Amino acid sequence: MRYIPPRGFRDFPPEIQILRKRIFSKIEKIFQRYGFDPIETPVLEYYETFKGKYGKETEERLLYRFKDPWSNTWYALRYDLTVPLARFMRNYNGPLPFKRYHIGRVWRHERPQRGRYREFWQADADIVGSKNPEADAEVVNLTIDIMKEFKFTEFSLKLNDRRLLKGIFEVELDIKNPIDVFRSIDKVDKIGIDGVREELQKKGYATQIIEKIVDIISQSGNPEDTLARLQERYKYNKDVQEATSHLLEMFDFITEKNAIRLALDLVRGLDYYTGPIWEVIVKEPKMGSLGGGGRYDELIGIYTGRQLPATGTSIGVERLIDAGIALGIFPVRKETYTQVYVLVMEKSLLQYGFDIVMRLRNVGINAQIDLMRRKEKAQREYANKKNIPVVVFIGKKEFKAKEVTIYDRRTNKRITEKQERLADILKELL
Amino acid sequence: MRYIPPRGFRDFPPEIQILRKRIFSKIEKIFQRYGFDPIETPVLEYYETFKGKYGKETEERLLYRFKDPWSNTWYALRYDLTVPLARFMRNYNGPLPFKRYHIGRVWRHERPQRGRYREFWQADADIVGSKNPEADAEVVNLTIDIMKEFKFTEFSLKLNDRRLLKGIFEVELDIKNPIDVFRSIDKVDKIGIDGVREELQKKGYATQIIEKIVDIISQSGNPEDTLARLQERYKYNKDVQEATSHLLEMFDFITEKNAIRLALDLVRGLDYYTGPIWEVIVKEPKMGSLGGGGRYDELIGIYTGRQLPATGTSIGVERLIDAGIALGIFPVRKETYTQVYVLVMEKSLLQYGFDIVMRLRNVGINAQIDLMRRKEKAQREYANKKNIPVVVFIGKKEFKAKEVTIYDRRTNKRITEKQERLADILKELL
Repeated sequence: MRYIPPRGFRDFPPEIQILRKRIFSKIEKIFQRYGFDPIETPVLEYYETFKGKYGKETEERLLYRFKDPWSNTWYALRYDLTVPLARFMRNYNGPLPFKRYHIGRVWRHERPQRGRYREFWQADADIVGSKNPEADAEVVNLTIDIMKEFKFTEFSLKLNDRRLLKGIFEVELDIKNPIDVFRSIDKVDKIGIDGVREELQKKGYATQIIEKIVDIISQSGNPEDTLARLQERYKYNKDVQEATSHLLEMFDFITEKNAIRLALDLVRGLDYYTGPIWEVIVKEPKMGSLGGGGRYDELIGIYTGRQLPATGTSIGVERLIDAGIALGIFPVRKETYTQVYVLVMEKSLLQYGFDIVMRLRNVGINAQIDLMRRKEKAQREYANKKNIPVVVFIGKKEFKAKEVTIYDRRTNKRITEKQERLADILKELL
Repeated sequence: MRYIPPRGFRDFPPEIQILRKRIFSKIEKIFQRYGFDPIETPVLEYYETFKGKYGKETEERLLYRFKDPWSNTWYALRYDLTVPLARFMRNYNGPLPFKRYHIGRVWRHERPQRGRYREFWQADADIVGSKNPEADAEVVNLTIDIMKEFKFTEFSLKLNDRRLLKGIFEVELDIKNPIDVFRSIDKVDKIGIDGVREELQKKGYATQIIEKIVDIISQSGNPEDTLARLQERYKYNKDVQEATSHLLEMFDFITEKNAIRLALDLVRGLDYYTGPIWEVIVKEPKMGSLGGGGRYDELIGIYTGRQLPATGTSIGVERLIDAGIALGIFPVRKETYTQVYVLVMEKSLLQYGFDIVMRLRNVGINAQIDLMRRKEKAQREYANKKNIPVVVFIGKKEFKAKEVTIYDRRTNKRITEKQERLADILKELL
């Protein structure tokens, strides 16, 4: 019997789950500040919904698909939150732009390893209906705000535009299938620039073309200067002109320009992007991007039958948490939501203790009481192990005098007070 | 192409999702008040984890199981949150009792119909480690508090104990397999008492036995009196004695005794219960129980190898919401988290508007601005359709005078103020 979570899946005990909930809630508040509202969609979709949206390799290897024993229908667990949004838009008839956020799990049939799971969480914010650069700027600003909110200091947002490379590759280098080249470039972080050279060589590209590709994707410097240079150099290239003017307009609406790095070697894995794309990275610890996104003006039309331009950003919650823990931003400590433990020193006082604990709960205090009929010492140990901040002692003496002894574990202070004042005192303490 | 959610699965648009989140959050706060902390587990488990835990019919017909295309492994989507907790306990080494809550989806391959879905949410609170009646009372009090918190007035909690019927059936009526009889009794709400009679007849029970069964399960009256009567009548029946004294002790710790109804015809569907069981029902609208639970002292031991008594309650969130909507407790209205819409009357002021909207967001106000470069009227319509409470107008006149016009859609009041005071005024308004 394998009484363990499936391979690549995890349990989260309270001390981790409380930390995760705090992080989710912070992200959610920022989404709301930017005017995004939540939706929810099923964990399963019909397989047809996903088919042809992510690229062949992803679909065959990574999409978690299956038939149940009753039907001949193929289902798949959602691979991201973007395609479910696109499918959702089919039945949407509210006003545009539609700004939605969605925090939830996605599933990918990866080989599990450190920091990579088959079930993990994403936090997405997307704007549907606007083709304008300020919409891209809005989600980029949001992404940067999230990094700042979590007190990441050394981070940057790599920015590119799918049309830049496509325009240069197709027109200037006469490459028929730029996506094929994108797939090799996408591996640059893993295999290095020489690895990219090698892979392109294997794919049959001429050395001269490969060197031009490498030359183009290696450009760096001040983003606005570089864009102006590209705009000037490829004056008659429609894609390049569209991309550069879109990105330059975007810059007018970006609040933290210093955080942006133009990265012509950024392509991102998914097929559906059509315009600006970005990824947010931290200097330390060394790991992949903590999030990313981009514009996808064609995807939603597949589902709705009418063109609906869209742009969005996705936070990779697991990596954000791992990075935050590594940097000491998120302290992992024993945690509980319980604020008060009512310790009953005599079994005969248990019902009296229940009355008190219920009264505390009624005024909104998170409180526990012994359910094991244990002695004082065992109850005390429980409160310690659970790291409950305040313990209220009830003994025979206290019962007779209608008093309670309040012990604050954090400050080591102990006071005895009238029972009727208990709730007020606790509210001040907590 | 079937670009719709799978059969029995649902999308939740913002206006519904915001309502649902409010309800989840209220339930969660009550769980926390009672000293429960959250855990999370995978949506999938190995099929073996579920096998043999729910009864044969459930496992064959309702458990959403499948193989992925790569492995020969059977998986299943979780059927409830109780078995995942039991499996989770295998690796738990913290203090006892372990009080955990878990709000999440479960999946059942039911025939979808009004109010019945294949994907739905449950909110569970369980206490692991205590065999004492006060632990059962704790989760029953919690269940009743949730009903009160949501302002349900006409509800009751039906209470029974598995050992009561088992003891009477096995010893007094010489029935070898009481679970077989339980399964028929479980249908009483659907098929009526005559339906139960008929089904038991088909199963081969003698009329005399059937009438005795009907007689026993039809008892009603004041719970504590009825329990005392049973205790007296079956003085030498071990199971009945255990059940009645357990329930009577439980009563000492129940705060709303008036809400409790002893229901000897309550058996609940799942095989794993071993002691007290309950369900909470509302008088109106007519529907199944809004939640229920019970004690299961044997289940966790299957996973952990050591006996760990447990008791818990589960809120059926969909039914709670449906009942609340039907009773008008949960008003469904157009909703957004956005508090302020910044309306820019001239395109040239868009960047200036962005500065203002970013400043509002920085002080924690949820704000939106036009992303479609639309005229005033279209922006106004958007704010109306989204039901955003406050609109801030920025025109050329306002820009020059460093002022803003603030319009409260709820009160129809309009004021013009210095721009620097905007955030403060909005904070007062909202």
